[in-house]
Amino acid sequence: MAEQRVSQDARVLLDTTLAAIEVPDPAIQAVAQAELDAKTKPRGSLGRLERLAAQVAQIRGGVRPGLLQAAIVVAAADHGVTVEGVSAYPQEVTAQMVANFSSGGAAVSVLARQAGAKLTVVDAGVGAGTANFTEGPAMSEEQALEKVTAGIELAGELAGEGVSIVALGEMGIGNTTAASALSAALLGVDPERVVGPGTGLDAAGVAHKVDVVRRALAVNRSRRGRPLDTLAALGGLEIALLVGVVLGAAGRRMPVVVDGFISAAAALVAHRLCPAIGGYLIAAHLSPEPGHRLLLAELGLEPLLDLDLRLGEGSGAALALPLLHAAVAILEEMATFEGAGVSDASR
Amino acid sequence: MAEQRVSQDARVLLDTTLAAIEVPDPAIQAVAQAELDAKTKPRGSLGRLERLAAQVAQIRGGVRPGLLQAAIVVAAADHGVTVEGVSAYPQEVTAQMVANFSSGGAAVSVLARQAGAKLTVVDAGVGAGTANFTEGPAMSEEQALEKVTAGIELAGELAGEGVSIVALGEMGIGNTTAASALSAALLGVDPERVVGPGTGLDAAGVAHKVDVVRRALAVNRSRRGRPLDTLAALGGLEIALLVGVVLGAAGRRMPVVVDGFISAAAALVAHRLCPAIGGYLIAAHLSPEPGHRLLLAELGLEPLLDLDLRLGEGSGAALALPLLHAAVAILEEMATFEGAGVSDASR
Repeated sequence: MAEQRVSQDARVLLDTTLAAIEVPDPAIQAVAQAELDAKTKPRGSLGRLERLAAQVAQIRGGVRPGLLQAAIVVAAADHGVTVEGVSAYPQEVTAQMVANFSSGGAAVSVLARQAGAKLTVVDAGVGAGTANFTEGPAMSEEQALEKVTAGIELAGELAGEGVSIVALGEMGIGNTTAASALSAALLGVDPERVVGPGTGLDAAGVAHKVDVVRRALAVNRSRRGRPLDTLAALGGLEIALLVGVVLGAAGRRMPVVVDGFISAAAALVAHRLCPAIGGYLIAAHLSPEPGHRLLLAELGLEPLLDLDLRLGEGSGAALALPLLHAAVAILEEMATFEGAGVSDASR
Repeated sequence: MAEQRVSQDARVLLDTTLAAIEVPDPAIQAVAQAELDAKTKPRGSLGRLERLAAQVAQIRGGVRPGLLQAAIVVAAADHGVTVEGVSAYPQEVTAQMVANFSSGGAAVSVLARQAGAKLTVVDAGVGAGTANFTEGPAMSEEQALEKVTAGIELAGELAGEGVSIVALGEMGIGNTTAASALSAALLGVDPERVVGPGTGLDAAGVAHKVDVVRRALAVNRSRRGRPLDTLAALGGLEIALLVGVVLGAAGRRMPVVVDGFISAAAALVAHRLCPAIGGYLIAAHLSPEPGHRLLLAELGLEPLLDLDLRLGEGSGAALALPLLHAAVAILEEMATFEGAGVSDASR
C-alpha cells in the first residue's frame, strides 16, 4: 500500500512536470538574433556560437540570460546485464569510479573544475543495480518512475541553488549495452546499427554484445508499449534518473547539455515522453559509438564537438560548456556598431 | 645606411631564430601517452584531447607542462588593395576595431576574457598600410623583415612575462584578399580555389576578388622566389608580424594556436621559412573560407572546432583555448588506476 502511494505521488509529479514544460518562445530567438546582428562583427560571422546564444536566450526566456551557472549531473548505477560479459571492465569499477569522482581524480572531476561547473554525483543504484534484461525487464515500472521523479526533483533543487544550465553525465559498467537496447527499441532499428565497442570491446566482443541486445529485445518484446515501459524493460537506473533530470531542467527553463551515447538515449526517452523538451537540448559532441549519431539525428541535434571522445561521465559535456559560456558572453558583453563607433558594412 | 644596418640586424635575428627552433622531441610524446594510459579511463577514450595533451608536453619539453598561460596576439594593419573594392567594409574599420579591442567590446575581447587569456593588440600598420599589390609589391622586403622580427621579439617578451601558449589573431580590412594571394602563390593553386566571401561578399564580389588576386599574382610574378619575397609582395604587415610570432613562439617552446584563414597563411609562411615549426602548431577551427582547408591540409593540421566561424580577430583560437587547458589538466590532475584503486580492464 505504502509503495503504491509513493508510486501514485510519483506519477502525479511526472504528469505535472510534463504538462508544465513549454516550447521555448521563437519570438525571443528572433530578438536575440537581431541583437547579435547589431554587434561589431559581420552578420552571422560567429556562426554556430550565435545560434547557441539565441537558443539559450530563448530557453531562459529573455535576451539577457545572464552568465550561466552550470552543474554536471553524473548518475551512476550497476547493470545486471554485465553477467553476460558485455564490458571490458568488471562491475566493481562503477563503485570505484564513484569514489574517484568524489575524490576529484576522474576525468569529469578535472574537466568540471576547468569548466567552473558544479559536479553532482548521484548514486542511482550502485551495487543494487538492474536485473539482467536478457531474462526479463531490467526494472519494474515503479522503479523506473521512482528514478525519473528523483531526477526531476534533483533538477528542481539545482535550479533552487542558482544553477541555470545542466550537463548530463553517467557511469555504469555495462550501460552502453542498455543504451543500445533502448536505442534499438525506440528507433526501431536492428541492434547491429547501434551497438559499438563501448569502452573497448574487440570485434568478437561487439558481435556478442549485438547478440545480448537481440535477446534482451526478444525477451522484453511485450513490455515496449509506452516510453516508460521501454525504459523500465531495457534501460538502467542512472538512465532513468537522467530522463528525469532532462524533464525537470526543461520545466525550470534550463538548457540541457547532452554528453555521449548513454545520455542521448536518456534524452530520447524524455523526448518521447514530452516532445517540447527538444528545444532545450544541446548536443555537446559526437562520439564514435554508432548509435550516438542515430540518436542525435532523431533528436535533430548537431553536435558542437567531434573529438573522438568515448569516455562518458559527462566529459564531452564538460568540454562543451565553455562554448556555451562564450555564446552567452557574446550576447551580454559585446559592443554594438553604434555604441563603439564602428562603421557597418555598406548594404 | 642606418636603414641598411637595421635590416642587417633584423636578418641576423631572423637567421638566429630559425636556427634555434628544434623539432619537438617525439620521446616525450610517447612518455606522455604512457602517463595518459595509466589514468582512470579506458585507453584513448579522451580521443583528440589526449593527443593534444601529448603534443603540448612534447612542445614544452616534459610530461608536466604545468597549466598554460595564454596570450592572444591580435595584429592589425591596413591593406592598399582595399581601393580595389574587395571588402564589404570601409578601410577605416581597421582602426575603429583596434579601438574596440582595447575598450573590451569586440568579440575577441569578450572571448579572451572568457578564456582567461591575455589580449595583446599590435598596431602593425594601421593607417600606414601596404601598397596596392595589384600595381606592385605590397611592401619592401625590408618592411616585411622588420615586421617579422617585431613578431619574434614580441613572442620573446610574452615568454618573459610567463606566457606559455600563443594564439594568433588579426584585423585588417582587405586581409582575406592578401591571404588569398599568399595562399595561391605558396600552394601553387588557382585563385578561384582559395578566394571566398571573407566577411560578407556576394558572388559578384567574390568573382571580382578572384580577378584582383589574379592581377596581383601576375604583377608580382618575378617577386616570388623565397618565402620572404612572397610575403613582401603579396602579404600584409599584420601577416608578417604573425609570421614572426609563430617563429618566436616556436623558438621559446610555446604552442601556437592558429585561428582562421589569415593566421593559417602566416603559419604557412613561417613553415616555409622553417619546417620545424610544424610540430608547434594547433589548428583551432575550420572556417568556411575555402583557402583555409587547403592551408590546414598543407600544414597537416586537423582543426579542433568546426563552428562556421568567419570573423577572424583570433575569435576561433580563443574558443579553442579551453580545450588546450583541459588537455593539460587531464595530464596534470587525473588520478591513475593504481592511485585511485580502480580496477583496470582485463587485457
